[in-house]
Amino acid sequence: MESFRKIVGKSNVLTEYEDRYCYAYDATAIGDRLYLPDAVILPETTEQISKILKTANENKIPIVVRGAGTNLVGGCLPLKGGMVLHLSKMNKIINVDKNNLQCVVQPGVTVEKVQQEVQKRDLFYPPDPASLRVSTIGGSIAQSSGGPRGFKYGTTKDYVLALEAVLPDGAIIKTGGKTAKNVTGYNLTQLLTGSEGTLAVITEATLRLIPEPEERKVLLACFESIEMAAEAVTGMIYAGITPSTLDLMDKNTMQTIEKFHKTGLPTDMEAVLVLEADGFKESVEKQAEQIIKICKELGAKNIRSSQNQQEADEIWFARRSAFGAVSRLRPNVLTEDAVVPRDKVPDMVKEIRRIADKYSLTVCIMGHIGDGNIHPNFSLDLRDKDEAERFKKAADELFDAALSLGGTLSGEHGIGAEKLPYMKKALDKRSLELMKSIKSAFDPDNILNPGKVV
Amino acid sequence: MESFRKIVGKSNVLTEYEDRYCYAYDATAIGDRLYLPDAVILPETTEQISKILKTANENKIPIVVRGAGTNLVGGCLPLKGGMVLHLSKMNKIINVDKNNLQCVVQPGVTVEKVQQEVQKRDLFYPPDPASLRVSTIGGSIAQSSGGPRGFKYGTTKDYVLALEAVLPDGAIIKTGGKTAKNVTGYNLTQLLTGSEGTLAVITEATLRLIPEPEERKVLLACFESIEMAAEAVTGMIYAGITPSTLDLMDKNTMQTIEKFHKTGLPTDMEAVLVLEADGFKESVEKQAEQIIKICKELGAKNIRSSQNQQEADEIWFARRSAFGAVSRLRPNVLTEDAVVPRDKVPDMVKEIRRIADKYSLTVCIMGHIGDGNIHPNFSLDLRDKDEAERFKKAADELFDAALSLGGTLSGEHGIGAEKLPYMKKALDKRSLELMKSIKSAFDPDNILNPGKVV
Repeated sequence: MESFRKIVGKSNVLTEYEDRYCYAYDATAIGDRLYLPDAVILPETTEQISKILKTANENKIPIVVRGAGTNLVGGCLPLKGGMVLHLSKMNKIINVDKNNLQCVVQPGVTVEKVQQEVQKRDLFYPPDPASLRVSTIGGSIAQSSGGPRGFKYGTTKDYVLALEAVLPDGAIIKTGGKTAKNVTGYNLTQLLTGSEGTLAVITEATLRLIPEPEERKVLLACFESIEMAAEAVTGMIYAGITPSTLDLMDKNTMQTIEKFHKTGLPTDMEAVLVLEADGFKESVEKQAEQIIKICKELGAKNIRSSQNQQEADEIWFARRSAFGAVSRLRPNVLTEDAVVPRDKVPDMVKEIRRIADKYSLTVCIMGHIGDGNIHPNFSLDLRDKDEAERFKKAADELFDAALSLGGTLSGEHGIGAEKLPYMKKALDKRSLELMKSIKSAFDPDNILNPGKVV
Repeated sequence: MESFRKIVGKSNVLTEYEDRYCYAYDATAIGDRLYLPDAVILPETTEQISKILKTANENKIPIVVRGAGTNLVGGCLPLKGGMVLHLSKMNKIINVDKNNLQCVVQPGVTVEKVQQEVQKRDLFYPPDPASLRVSTIGGSIAQSSGGPRGFKYGTTKDYVLALEAVLPDGAIIKTGGKTAKNVTGYNLTQLLTGSEGTLAVITEATLRLIPEPEERKVLLACFESIEMAAEAVTGMIYAGITPSTLDLMDKNTMQTIEKFHKTGLPTDMEAVLVLEADGFKESVEKQAEQIIKICKELGAKNIRSSQNQQEADEIWFARRSAFGAVSRLRPNVLTEDAVVPRDKVPDMVKEIRRIADKYSLTVCIMGHIGDGNIHPNFSLDLRDKDEAERFKKAADELFDAALSLGGTLSGEHGIGAEKLPYMKKALDKRSLELMKSIKSAFDPDNILNPGKVV
């Protein structure tokens, strides 16, 4: 411990029980289990991280990197003790380079802060995880986070141009570069992106930006069935429309939201689509017209269209309230993240409901229908051992269902500790072996986030 | 040889000198060097490839995978002999799935064929390497090929959702999946994309598609200097315009083209920009108006704007003739592919000209100015040993210049054999070591395309 104090200063190594307790969990509901780290280190520079890792590696001390701890798959849990490396002090935006449509940031800056800073220069960083107000860029890159805009804009991985990262032995590497096109050797940038802190500690990122769209319009379309909503999405795809957001909420979700906030959601409807169109003013008008036409033709009962920013904010407020509202129902909420091919969403929703009924669980279904990335939010009390056991069985069946529909375990939350048991079902033996070899090449002593991903 | 004949049939193993000669080079100008393979194998199925690799691996026989051989960095050259695996018989489009905006293809199908097939269903596969009429999807993925549309649409890597690939020991792996979002373990899909046939043989790919834009408009803007053209590009970025193409040709290039075809290029101008705007009709009109306004304000002498498909085709014909025209000047043309941050393009052009003058070489400069990916085409006769030696020195200085401007060795052509000597300058020692470890994990006996990339 003394050697870590020498590197970062005494005040940047937290060892009190109360401090360590705050880092013993993340946003994943884990019941009464608690994973206390031995200490929490708050580094301020890449060089400090290099020294910390070198020391930890020499002493085989596990290192768990942490941003804001909004992880939903237990990715920040120090399963084997060791040190939590909390990057909150490395939170600077180093530059915004409009000429080259990119910015350089430290890992501890929040996604919202990056979006706000680049927006001041009429630029746009599209990835928008629901937690963006608090979640960090480093965490986003580690998990390759998504969000509602994935259908049009892709996810975090599509915006990472270059990384600076520290290997377990303290070596500092630089991957990628300051150019949008780059095929100089194997793509280490994309290998680190989504590697959940198991290969290296990301200390700086160069992000790709695009021009801020001139206009946005938000629409809320109400349907009598999930199938009809899905049909409307298909209709849009066939009409060549690519909304920037194509989100879905089911009746349970809407009723739960309205219980806590009156946002005017149609609680008698089975499904709503929250749609956003963006681009040049003229093209947004045209897209909105077509979206409304298609939704009406395919049975939408009611369509709200934002006429100004306030009305758009109201619709988004309703959608963004979903997780919070569900969280208030019972002590715990467990959000799953299985993803299926888009046209299998109605089948997946049916499976989710069947499984929830089978195990007597309450589920609110929401998510990104354009990507096939549906989040069933199970509301439960993990102190109730029987309910916790039923949830475990339900999750098993849920992933089986996603895989059998041609989908996979995670669209945007990652694998972490929670989904590790399912990896063998999702990937072939040799792919898993290759991943383990890659892990060994980067981290031969397995000190980085042990017990996660592979 | 007999064991390979048993796997694919006698007629699919070519051993005659004349046949092998055809596979002893690719599109890279290599002078009088010749790399004859021991045989050429034409497999028809993944299972055959699995058996071929297993046999080759057991006998330590090098395997060089080849698509159409349009590679510009010696990537298809069998440096150490062995077998060329020519995938021309695996050229099927397995399906086009409009509902899920994707298609599944075999590696030997041409990029143009994929574009045409998906266009029939109003879908769009954006990557457009200049060689697209003959170059294959497998080759594109292996090199992560780019093209003029990179500025708006990215490159091949941005369209690969899933791969089936065969490892050297014959194991068949599947990476990625049928969903746009997928963070299930490390990104093996992006590791294989751009790995130039050194890690595995890609036998099937699932590609992401987008809706076909409603309209396209092509513009040709003429400038009295490269700097003014670059300023116009900056102006567009600041105006929030993202043309789908932002290409540049210099005076030498235009004069060379006009020598062979009368395409109406302004041979008295120092630079032209070839611009394409796409999207909804209304947005294309608006973009074109703004592009014209910005170009005029920033000194464009003349702007041609396509009023119909024929006029658009004429402008593109001129641009696409560039490489062919330069090839007719002298026996060889060597295209370099260094890439710099976009706002360093004028500096890079100056460096290219300085270096060409220094070594008395003829150079035509063209390329993708929006990406900073400029292709200097050196026209020379490699039989002239002195000129060949001068070119070698010029290339060394060129890459030094690109690196010192914050760029890198390759935007879209890859490393292959030609740029291998420069890798140590472009990447840090540990990144190179990691790449070598990854190579060893996939291909421990180094049978796949030995002597390339790492």
